[in-house]
Amino acid sequence: MKYHATLLIELKDGILDPQGRAVESVLKSLQYQAENVRVGRVLEMELEAANESEARVTAHHIGKALANPVMEVFVVEAIKELA
Amino acid sequence: MKYHATLLIELKDGILDPQGRAVESVLKSLQYQAENVRVGRVLEMELEAANESEARVTAHHIGKALANPVMEVFVVEAIKELA
Repeated sequence: MKYHATLLIELKDGILDPQGRAVESVLKSLQYQAENVRVGRVLEMELEAANESEARVTAHHIGKALANPVMEVFVVEAIKELA
Repeated sequence: MKYHATLLIELKDGILDPQGRAVESVLKSLQYQAENVRVGRVLEMELEAANESEARVTAHHIGKALANPVMEVFVVEAIKELA
């Protein structure tokens, strides 16, 4: 079966995020009171798997392969069965 | 009150995504059967708002300001009250 997986890869909390700081200053100049802005990556993909838990395990392996363990954390945000 | 907002900004469906293609070929070389990989941005931030729906409206405005309407779509993924 086919599953749609959503993964988030974000910088760890202590790591300086220049892109986030830049976005924050843009938002401040637009009068939005946004704080602690952090920018990460979202990956959407289709996976072939026998069932949802197998798809989740594959997505977990993929997150581990793509994230830099020193600076980043990843989350398997969602696994959804495709019709 | 303070709210934590998560926004996703992704390329529209028809738009070619070279970064997604690159990730897809890396995953294929690692023997993962991932298809239609799309790479977008995730923004996490803290917003000051009177209530959750006001925070959601602000996050919506911010998404509109940051996404390129020609090529990108944004989703307010989550609004969470901070303790």
